[in-house]
Amino acid sequence: MGDAISPKDMGISIDRNEGSPIYIQLYEQLKGYITEGILPEDSRLPAIRSFAEYLGVNNITVVNAYKLLEDNKLIYKKVGSGSFAMPLKDEINLRNDAVTVSDEIEFDTDVGTGNDMINLSTASPDPELFPVGDFRRVLNEVLERDAGRAFMYHESMGYKPLRESITEYLRTCGVESEASGIHVISGAQQGIDIVSRVLLANGDYVFVESPTYNGAVAVFRSRGAKIIEIPLLSDGPDMKELDKMLKLIKPKFIYVMPNFQNPTGCTYSERKRKHLLLLCRKYDVMVVEDDYMSDLSYLDKVEKPLKGLDKENRVIYIKSFSKIFMPGLRVGYMIIPDSIKEKVMNMKYMTDISTSGLMQRVLDLYFRSGTWDKHLKYMKKEYSVRYIEAVRAVKKHLREASFSQPYGGLNLWIKLPAGISSSELFERCKEEKVLFTPGTVFIKTAKGEQYMRISFAGAGPLQINDGISTIGRVMEKMKSNAKRA
Amino acid sequence: MGDAISPKDMGISIDRNEGSPIYIQLYEQLKGYITEGILPEDSRLPAIRSFAEYLGVNNITVVNAYKLLEDNKLIYKKVGSGSFAMPLKDEINLRNDAVTVSDEIEFDTDVGTGNDMINLSTASPDPELFPVGDFRRVLNEVLERDAGRAFMYHESMGYKPLRESITEYLRTCGVESEASGIHVISGAQQGIDIVSRVLLANGDYVFVESPTYNGAVAVFRSRGAKIIEIPLLSDGPDMKELDKMLKLIKPKFIYVMPNFQNPTGCTYSERKRKHLLLLCRKYDVMVVEDDYMSDLSYLDKVEKPLKGLDKENRVIYIKSFSKIFMPGLRVGYMIIPDSIKEKVMNMKYMTDISTSGLMQRVLDLYFRSGTWDKHLKYMKKEYSVRYIEAVRAVKKHLREASFSQPYGGLNLWIKLPAGISSSELFERCKEEKVLFTPGTVFIKTAKGEQYMRISFAGAGPLQINDGISTIGRVMEKMKSNAKRA
Repeated sequence: MGDAISPKDMGISIDRNEGSPIYIQLYEQLKGYITEGILPEDSRLPAIRSFAEYLGVNNITVVNAYKLLEDNKLIYKKVGSGSFAMPLKDEINLRNDAVTVSDEIEFDTDVGTGNDMINLSTASPDPELFPVGDFRRVLNEVLERDAGRAFMYHESMGYKPLRESITEYLRTCGVESEASGIHVISGAQQGIDIVSRVLLANGDYVFVESPTYNGAVAVFRSRGAKIIEIPLLSDGPDMKELDKMLKLIKPKFIYVMPNFQNPTGCTYSERKRKHLLLLCRKYDVMVVEDDYMSDLSYLDKVEKPLKGLDKENRVIYIKSFSKIFMPGLRVGYMIIPDSIKEKVMNMKYMTDISTSGLMQRVLDLYFRSGTWDKHLKYMKKEYSVRYIEAVRAVKKHLREASFSQPYGGLNLWIKLPAGISSSELFERCKEEKVLFTPGTVFIKTAKGEQYMRISFAGAGPLQINDGISTIGRVMEKMKSNAKRA
Repeated sequence: MGDAISPKDMGISIDRNEGSPIYIQLYEQLKGYITEGILPEDSRLPAIRSFAEYLGVNNITVVNAYKLLEDNKLIYKKVGSGSFAMPLKDEINLRNDAVTVSDEIEFDTDVGTGNDMINLSTASPDPELFPVGDFRRVLNEVLERDAGRAFMYHESMGYKPLRESITEYLRTCGVESEASGIHVISGAQQGIDIVSRVLLANGDYVFVESPTYNGAVAVFRSRGAKIIEIPLLSDGPDMKELDKMLKLIKPKFIYVMPNFQNPTGCTYSERKRKHLLLLCRKYDVMVVEDDYMSDLSYLDKVEKPLKGLDKENRVIYIKSFSKIFMPGLRVGYMIIPDSIKEKVMNMKYMTDISTSGLMQRVLDLYFRSGTWDKHLKYMKKEYSVRYIEAVRAVKKHLREASFSQPYGGLNLWIKLPAGISSSELFERCKEEKVLFTPGTVFIKTAKGEQYMRISFAGAGPLQINDGISTIGRVMEKMKSNAKRA
């Protein structure tokens, strides 16, 4: 058993002016160290008295922080020898916070936030962008052609002509598929839910990227699954960590967004994609690919889905149209291996019988009439204007922040300057009528405070500039206040 | 311990010409007696030798039948004293058959059954009936008015103006509600699924009517719930049986369709409705009311939902528009007590984020513009023609069958003449291009063979007459074949 880590080496910072009690501050920082593996497993924590002395706090403060860590299974005690970081195998890296899905609920503008807000939080498209004229034309054409038949139930798998159109379209994205393997769903969220209900049982493990989309984590947890987070680097997951974890634990699947990941905008390198599939083969693990965005690249380079590289039918592919088409339509699709096809069909039936037949027929005609290609071109053009503006404004107004520029998607994931807390910045910007998403929504440890997500889907170019400039102003004020204090 | 029941009193009939082995025939009949409570709990079954002798079969046949009953926990053995019917408390009345939801999957006409079929199986509306013109008008009005906003996400609870319209409409049905208690869902099946996921855990009990809708039972079972069947009489559940079971077991809820029940068409009497709510109060149990049909009464008398009598917020009310409006729209709603509101919202979000905003706005405008009332009147008129024709044809062509005439809904539940098996009749009618739903889809015991469901939603009046006349002809042939044999 090694010596305890010296209190000095811990780099704990206590802020007596902050609202939260000191023992909570201490707890949060230690929790972050442990869940992020900064404190190696089984390493001894500083003794209570010396730690308290070093920090200039009462013993009871450290006792309370350790108690909370123990309650949350982040450390364990050995009588007579002190407290130790829980090994990964047991609880470390487990998201054992209660994820509430409402974190990311995005309201209709007329219901949620007022109209005078600049909303850089929602990743939902600006309704002004939607080409209603085209939609009406296609919709009326379907009603003319199919009349009442457009309103019947379809097979739970989906309207066959649409499944055929999707197969055609997937070919242009570098994915080979068959209509009999396509399952139409009422949006990607339903796909995540159905797959989880088919594959996950209580106590199963799921690996996810860290940070990741909360709406998925909430579903996995609702199945009683344990979540293991694999850190994301700029070119994809930390493969060493992934390999290490796969050696320890066999998850039911790994949930990934390889293109323009939410929230980071990260796109996996070709090398990491192949490496990921190789590891999954080695450890016989499935992948759930959530492709909510791969169509939206601002470069000529188009990102193929991971599914395109999948020769072994290990990848369950879930495709959303919500961001690129419109959220309110509630249509998406999945590619499902034959081995679970029957179960997925039954689960889909139990969930909502089938997806709106009318919307399926509309989407099908979009594909067949070339309206889809036209739509995609138009959305890319519109979004790229916003993208360029958002990148420009962040570089100009948030000079001390840093971010890795994505080349697609609708989000910028920004690291805040030291000393700025994301949730505090959020509260202050809200007062100034600007919304963004604080990193704490995606990362439940103290680290979340260092990040923010700016989404440019729901605001126009002028609003984007105004909003980001306001954020910059608020940030400056927070810094100078901190200095003065 | 009483004497064994005499083999003579058992009324077992063995048919050596039937395809299934004799021990299976014996098992099926005994299973029926036990699950239906015809054999009282703990009553002794006939001794093997005397039973075999009486039936004129080998001892081993009875041994095998008893073995199968024991494997299925329908009887228990006491060494030296024989075999006994399992008490209700343990396993009796439990549906321990594997319900596959596909039993009732209803395909689009162009995908499933051929167009030359007369389909008296589907309870989905005839697409020819749907007033596409009105729908187009309302839809285009919404698109004109709301443009891109019609396609945004809404609150998971649903588009607020629609929830207000529903509240107004419910008042006319005798149900007081508030918009804040209404949850819009993507069809009633989703409502059943969400409520089950919120309320049911592994091993919980749910009481259902017998027979009932399989799609609901499949969901309850997917949550690991145990199903207790309460027999339906002509005016509602067998209240004595219900009281007896409630004394023994506290279920999470009782799932009912008090108006024009599926498949029986049964409507609960006022007395039984009140009695049901009283029992639920006494035993502190919730009710899930699946109202898929109460609007469709062919008499001037309109049936109120059970929810209208619920003063204690014990009834979760799930409303479908699939039969009365159109299945492919995938919109319905629930009234949920405040105590589970938060959980239901979270579950809805996890399930599919929200229901199509466009369809919600269309439905809202239907209500507000009076188009809904017009639609309802029209559907009632159209369906009543089919209803009258179906009743007339059954009385004329199926003279030896019996049924209790419902005064609403889309189904006739018919008891076949003795000696006619529903599944065999189904196969033979299918050859003659007529489909109905055999009782075995709803009742998994031998009793299911005695019933059939004829639905008149999906066929025109002429087809209804032709189809029922064909069924009558096939039935006659089966009977005369049986006589000759």
